[in-house]
Amino acid sequence: MEPVRTGAAAVITGSEVLTAKIQDQNGPLLIQRLRARGVPMRWMATVHDDLDAIVEAVTIALRRAKTVITSGGIGPTHDDVTVRAVATALGRGVERLPEMEALIREHYRDATTKEAMRLADVPEGSVLIPQEGTWYPVIQCDDVYLLPGVPQLFRLQLETVLARLPGKPVFAWALYLSRGETEIAAALDQVALELPDVAIGSYPQFDQGLDYRVKVTVEGEDERRVMLARDRLRRAFPNGAILREEGGL
Amino acid sequence: MEPVRTGAAAVITGSEVLTAKIQDQNGPLLIQRLRARGVPMRWMATVHDDLDAIVEAVTIALRRAKTVITSGGIGPTHDDVTVRAVATALGRGVERLPEMEALIREHYRDATTKEAMRLADVPEGSVLIPQEGTWYPVIQCDDVYLLPGVPQLFRLQLETVLARLPGKPVFAWALYLSRGETEIAAALDQVALELPDVAIGSYPQFDQGLDYRVKVTVEGEDERRVMLARDRLRRAFPNGAILREEGGL
Repeated sequence: MEPVRTGAAAVITGSEVLTAKIQDQNGPLLIQRLRARGVPMRWMATVHDDLDAIVEAVTIALRRAKTVITSGGIGPTHDDVTVRAVATALGRGVERLPEMEALIREHYRDATTKEAMRLADVPEGSVLIPQEGTWYPVIQCDDVYLLPGVPQLFRLQLETVLARLPGKPVFAWALYLSRGETEIAAALDQVALELPDVAIGSYPQFDQGLDYRVKVTVEGEDERRVMLARDRLRRAFPNGAILREEGGL
Repeated sequence: MEPVRTGAAAVITGSEVLTAKIQDQNGPLLIQRLRARGVPMRWMATVHDDLDAIVEAVTIALRRAKTVITSGGIGPTHDDVTVRAVATALGRGVERLPEMEALIREHYRDATTKEAMRLADVPEGSVLIPQEGTWYPVIQCDDVYLLPGVPQLFRLQLETVLARLPGKPVFAWALYLSRGETEIAAALDQVALELPDVAIGSYPQFDQGLDYRVKVTVEGEDERRVMLARDRLRRAFPNGAILREEGGL
């Protein structure tokens, strides 16, 4: 039985990121904003502007999450292959959308070129969602949102997408410890096993300027279960190991 | 016929990145350092601390690149599953390495716990590469390097890995244009088709404070072919479209 898909996954194209010409801002922003909206982020791939690589990544993303957001590769140039890749991953063709053609003509007027019209080519069955702040709408096909890679546009359109996703707040608690991971691993194991619905994370740090050695996080959708896990960890850790705690990350 | 694998790919685990607890520094650093070393970066995935997700990502990474670098998930706690995942992707078991056990005992001395000893569990057939600056060696199994997620350690070990990879310098040229992508797309198409061994990128920007509208990059391993592509683009672009140029990105 296939598990019920929930949450979101992302496919970041393209080559300018992987060749270090620019540092990707869209992935980190996406992760932060999804978190704030209470939408679990499942998976992310960063791939070249390569048809086969994008098809594969979108296919996996769709298996791992309900909603997939792509960044980049939807412009008018030869290296823009995301539309065709998403269409392929969804088992669809590419069609020229009259509604989008009209928007392009309205925007470019006399400067409308044959290449500008390529922006109207979208996966079959796509819908356009009007975007405040720009003439360029959000393109959605099934559960995939095709966002532009340009950070200013990505940022705008992301908010339009987020407003449509169902989010659930996550309750979180953090404990800062004076002991190293090897000394607390047994306690973490035990509580993680007892309460599998609560996610327990352990993050060592090696910066001498900070007062703690490991930050342990506890989180889940059910606040009572999170607090129960916290209480069990408090008891299971060595005496005096907890330096301080923090709620609501 | 399988293509010859070259370059590198990366798998960034885990959950602390995807839940926005920390922003990943290792992926961007890896991309920059590989570029500087002349090693092509092929693909990158960011996944949860989940066995199945890491196995899948490492498997794809190995298909897309010669060398795979993983970040994170090799500590002693319950959420550290990268060792088992890499072993699975390589069709190997997990074994306790006596050489690593000795290093752990030497480092932790009286504070050596059962959990600390888990650090000695590595994919079968792994070799340890001594790491300057820390007792903790680089773990290599076949073409996979298992690096720690902690940025200070990742940074150290990455240099050890890079020194072992064969790099080829890339020649690059950039043209800054006063025209939008829709006006230059035809020229880009034509030259990209004529010179498929040269990578041509096109990056629009929408920041009013910058003087150009699109940055076009031309790059490849053969300098003469890169210069040839540049010359053809100069001729193919509309008159006066080039604001300035820049060599060696």
